[in-house]
Amino acid sequence: MALSEFDLIYRYFSALGRGDAVDLGVGDDCAILRLPPGARLATSVDTVVEGVHFPEDAFPEDLAYRAVAVAASDLAAMGARPLGMTLAITLPVVDELWLRAFSEGLAAAVTDFDLPLVGGDTTRGSLCIAVQVFGALPGGKALLRGGAAVGDSLCVSGTLGDGAAGLAVVSGDWRGDPEQGDYLERRYYRPTPRLALGLELLDTATAAIDISDGLVADAGHIAAASGAKLVIDPQLLPLSPALQALPDREQALRWALSGGDDYELCFTLPPGAELPAGCTRIGRVEAGEGVDCGLDLAGPVGYQHF
Amino acid sequence: MALSEFDLIYRYFSALGRGDAVDLGVGDDCAILRLPPGARLATSVDTVVEGVHFPEDAFPEDLAYRAVAVAASDLAAMGARPLGMTLAITLPVVDELWLRAFSEGLAAAVTDFDLPLVGGDTTRGSLCIAVQVFGALPGGKALLRGGAAVGDSLCVSGTLGDGAAGLAVVSGDWRGDPEQGDYLERRYYRPTPRLALGLELLDTATAAIDISDGLVADAGHIAAASGAKLVIDPQLLPLSPALQALPDREQALRWALSGGDDYELCFTLPPGAELPAGCTRIGRVEAGEGVDCGLDLAGPVGYQHF
Repeated sequence: MALSEFDLIYRYFSALGRGDAVDLGVGDDCAILRLPPGARLATSVDTVVEGVHFPEDAFPEDLAYRAVAVAASDLAAMGARPLGMTLAITLPVVDELWLRAFSEGLAAAVTDFDLPLVGGDTTRGSLCIAVQVFGALPGGKALLRGGAAVGDSLCVSGTLGDGAAGLAVVSGDWRGDPEQGDYLERRYYRPTPRLALGLELLDTATAAIDISDGLVADAGHIAAASGAKLVIDPQLLPLSPALQALPDREQALRWALSGGDDYELCFTLPPGAELPAGCTRIGRVEAGEGVDCGLDLAGPVGYQHF
Repeated sequence: MALSEFDLIYRYFSALGRGDAVDLGVGDDCAILRLPPGARLATSVDTVVEGVHFPEDAFPEDLAYRAVAVAASDLAAMGARPLGMTLAITLPVVDELWLRAFSEGLAAAVTDFDLPLVGGDTTRGSLCIAVQVFGALPGGKALLRGGAAVGDSLCVSGTLGDGAAGLAVVSGDWRGDPEQGDYLERRYYRPTPRLALGLELLDTATAAIDISDGLVADAGHIAAASGAKLVIDPQLLPLSPALQALPDREQALRWALSGGDDYELCFTLPPGAELPAGCTRIGRVEAGEGVDCGLDLAGPVGYQHF
């Protein structure tokens, strides 16, 4: 990577490249990370594009924070401990004010998620942000999608539907309480990757995924990889006070079931395993295939990328 | 990462995700790589954008190959052994013919550089390709930019200037022999990252960098990081037969000194170290700072990213 170009951003937060696993950060041909003895590397990349993954009038701070949170959520879903990240950003112009604001959001994410920025690349073009995250998996362990077994409980962390409702707020489509709108907008722009929960589940969960495209769509990946059927009881879905207060309960349930952008974890626990704090049992694993949520969700379920 | 989107490309070359270090490839929340015991992770990301880093009429095969080669060159410059890569690609439309051709070039690069594709992300937007490469560095070793010492030899691999001359061919600015134009165009689109040389240099070279922005610009990074002056003798620059045959010798030297896109290695060797095969001694390390090539290179030296 070329320091000369990346330097444009990096100078705003060079102190944020330090971390226990970082042997060499920005400034050479590669970054060098040290994994704990016996650990394996977990890595994932997520790209966000202006006008596709976020509204064009988004604050640069939120944009940066959200891009990192979304990528970090994949580490959480594997049970990986964060080591660091790199950033490949394409910018139409070099706007110092924009960069400073962007870097502030990035700095907050670096701190919140323990993901020092160890390298990157800056190029000219339409605004596009690719965050690559690195994490360590101890021993032979990993939270995969394919281990759910008949009789397991189906569980989720946090509350569902807030991401989709937040996007409705951002898009001007929110018909609920304006105060709750602020909460939801924040949930959309500042999701919380469940990193600590991922580590906790590494020894107990049989399968896990993060909810980016919507519960039913993402649970479908566990069902397909595990060769089982996931049954969801909509009455058990955890809803935030903001969504509970919504007069249109069907809308709230649709957001919780098929809206995306929640970045909570969906996972399966074997019989007898203790439910972690802040999590809810929403269903069970049965023989069969696919996801049954007991409702007819008309229209496309989950976010369609193309 | 979402399989549903990346699958668009991945189905064309799913057999190419296998590798010794790959414990888990495409299809879960993260890829999992296994490093050799005691090895450290080297990683770098390079983004190429249509109309900026490559002509708009480039063949998709060449585009894919070049994007991977450019990223792999950073592993070579660190002396890292390739483990795998991920690909974040933004596409304006889903064009199956384009994707098939792109995937062919990608497959060739996967094979040539031992870089199985272990994950990625596909999004909609202006064409933009970010390749993240992963390599293993044994023990505490790494080829850094900062170790050049007074008295060392300055050396390069291969021949210089072919990348810039190739870009002139692609842009219709080549005034030399058309047959040599074909060779140069191929050198531009299909550069050769010096991965084996990087591994060889790990035990001997005091500093190294790959030449992406032009010899003088990139040697300048070694000079700055090492706190030394690099003196280049232009008479010693290795030129391909295509550039040697060019009637305008000054143009050939300018391309060799300040053209980019060569992806050869520039490195320093301590006194007594043997020059590896295919490499040329082009100067020496002296006390001082900067790069002295004995010529006045009017105009900007090296590729300016903004």
